[in-house]
Amino acid sequence: MKININRQYFIEQLNHCLKAISPRTTLPILTGIKIDVKNDHMILTGSDSEVSIEITVPMEIDNEEVLEIERPGAVVLSGRFFVDIIKKLSGEFVQLETNDSFQTKITAAKSEFNLSGNDPDQYPLLPEVNDEESLVISASVLKDVISQTNFAVSLSETRPVLTGVHWQFDNDEITFTATDSHRLALRKLRGGQFNSDLGNAIIPGKSLSELNKIINDTDEEVEIHLSQNQVLFSYGNMRFISRLLEGNYPDTSRLFPENYETKVTVNNAEFFHAIDRVSLLAREGGNNVIRMNVNSSSVELSSNSPEVGTVNEDINTGEVEGEGLKISFNSKYMMDALRAINNEDVTIEFYGTMRPFTLKSSESDEVVQLILPIRTY
Amino acid sequence: MKININRQYFIEQLNHCLKAISPRTTLPILTGIKIDVKNDHMILTGSDSEVSIEITVPMEIDNEEVLEIERPGAVVLSGRFFVDIIKKLSGEFVQLETNDSFQTKITAAKSEFNLSGNDPDQYPLLPEVNDEESLVISASVLKDVISQTNFAVSLSETRPVLTGVHWQFDNDEITFTATDSHRLALRKLRGGQFNSDLGNAIIPGKSLSELNKIINDTDEEVEIHLSQNQVLFSYGNMRFISRLLEGNYPDTSRLFPENYETKVTVNNAEFFHAIDRVSLLAREGGNNVIRMNVNSSSVELSSNSPEVGTVNEDINTGEVEGEGLKISFNSKYMMDALRAINNEDVTIEFYGTMRPFTLKSSESDEVVQLILPIRTY
Repeated sequence: MKININRQYFIEQLNHCLKAISPRTTLPILTGIKIDVKNDHMILTGSDSEVSIEITVPMEIDNEEVLEIERPGAVVLSGRFFVDIIKKLSGEFVQLETNDSFQTKITAAKSEFNLSGNDPDQYPLLPEVNDEESLVISASVLKDVISQTNFAVSLSETRPVLTGVHWQFDNDEITFTATDSHRLALRKLRGGQFNSDLGNAIIPGKSLSELNKIINDTDEEVEIHLSQNQVLFSYGNMRFISRLLEGNYPDTSRLFPENYETKVTVNNAEFFHAIDRVSLLAREGGNNVIRMNVNSSSVELSSNSPEVGTVNEDINTGEVEGEGLKISFNSKYMMDALRAINNEDVTIEFYGTMRPFTLKSSESDEVVQLILPIRTY
Repeated sequence: MKININRQYFIEQLNHCLKAISPRTTLPILTGIKIDVKNDHMILTGSDSEVSIEITVPMEIDNEEVLEIERPGAVVLSGRFFVDIIKKLSGEFVQLETNDSFQTKITAAKSEFNLSGNDPDQYPLLPEVNDEESLVISASVLKDVISQTNFAVSLSETRPVLTGVHWQFDNDEITFTATDSHRLALRKLRGGQFNSDLGNAIIPGKSLSELNKIINDTDEEVEIHLSQNQVLFSYGNMRFISRLLEGNYPDTSRLFPENYETKVTVNNAEFFHAIDRVSLLAREGGNNVIRMNVNSSSVELSSNSPEVGTVNEDINTGEVEGEGLKISFNSKYMMDALRAINNEDVTIEFYGTMRPFTLKSSESDEVVQLILPIRTY
């Protein structure tokens, strides 16, 4: 293998590959990046066996040469270390040359590195993903969907399915659900014509959060292919593959009650900042608990910590419907939920002090956030 | 005590005070900030007993009211937590009111915090510093002096005096020296008329690095007062007080030999980046050792790590004087030294493979860096 490649472009692609690489892997070769040079393109692969990222580098981009191939071939080079070298070199192009024992010479300007490489045949094969059953959504919508649900997945491995986001496909809508059994985030995506044969899938929260870091907030299309055990996100010159979680996701539909007892509408930003302030004391108290007192004419937040002090916040509310109510909740869950509802006004519906309450935009029910209260009153 | 204070201005001053506060203090009251309101100004104090920062807040700045005093008094409030509250409040002004048991009410807009405070009489008195023996230098020069020496202080407490920077006053020059016994940084400050009665002082490296974060890179004057055990830096509305280190600083003058055997001039930035690249492998090898090979016509850097590979860098040099030489050194010390010499061209003078070598600007000897080689050849 012998190539010349545009250094800046190479760095960007290598950085994407690094996102799939974990230093704590059981298979040592997975700490490396696989560089596979064909006759007219190059494929870079990084993987931690849960998530794999595969990038195709063409020879030209917009008629500008980025890659010159003198001799095809392949090698696996130590991930982070190799990328650090490419970053610190000078010059517009860098040359890589690998010999039969995978020793790789890297040259640029007056620098010459000689690195031990690994046999690419030792690198595991990426899972095959069926290209047939697919849907297409824009990168910016996919980013929204991930941000509005992924924070609510469980961090505990006690019930593995809860560490993922549940994607349910219907004819004209997809429902995304995440819950850690203390709160639940739900997002509906409507308007497209989706293939309901796609069925359901549980995608690991960790994979989605890596994907979210890579895709840009643009109209670019992301093609999504689902197979039995894997999901493939195809985006620009990148293929992002994640395993799926096995098992049955719990039926969460029965969590949403019908008729609220109390309904409050608040300004999102103002309410968020008030919670943020009260949470300072709630956190100091060690339990993050905030009390909310709803009257016909006012909403008040409070918290106290015996050693430190007390705090009170009066909230401006648009309107309060129904009965008065005293309820307590975890401030972090409330702030996560408010962040996920990107709308100026938020409607909170309560079903009694002991039952879960819901938050949604006052204009749409595409995003619904549900929080279990804490018993203090 | 009862005051109204401009919130943004208050936050800036509190942030300065926080720099002196350490969460790991043996005296619990020192985790707090002392707020002392007089009739026509307020004094804020933060301290970890090594470093103390005292800030005077006037009632007006440029004819704009920043502080309104309704009732003088004093209280000590939990440092970081109190500052977090002031930061997260809304509104231009915030009101503080303290009762007889030091309970403090903080109000702004629709928020009200009630915090437990501490008796200011329990707060230790700051050391008295004699105002007489002083020198005045500009903030930007003081920042330079700190950056060019402070990195070389010892991090080990084996010889406590080496954890500080040695300031030696002479009639027309001050010499600043720091060494961890593997390398030494020296800076001379000339041109002023200094009071040689000031004698010598060893200022803790940690104090200088906090001071460096607070002062701005401007022409503003810093007044420096030295007493037996303390140094006071008076800067704007701030008094920064640090204890001095006791003991005798070693005589380092005999470390600088007279006649070099080899002299090389290199471009600072280019040489720095080459060292940075070679150090990637040196670090991977676990010892940070870089080899340098000087011939009459070329300078070459190299490093190797048996498992990982090798690296070679050719250096463009202006001129090589004297004999050829092979020498090894720690890459981190070399990079620190090059950073401290803020000049385009750097002259390196060698006195043989086993003896310390020096680096300085090719134009001035105000900054001299000395590095001990490592025996590998």
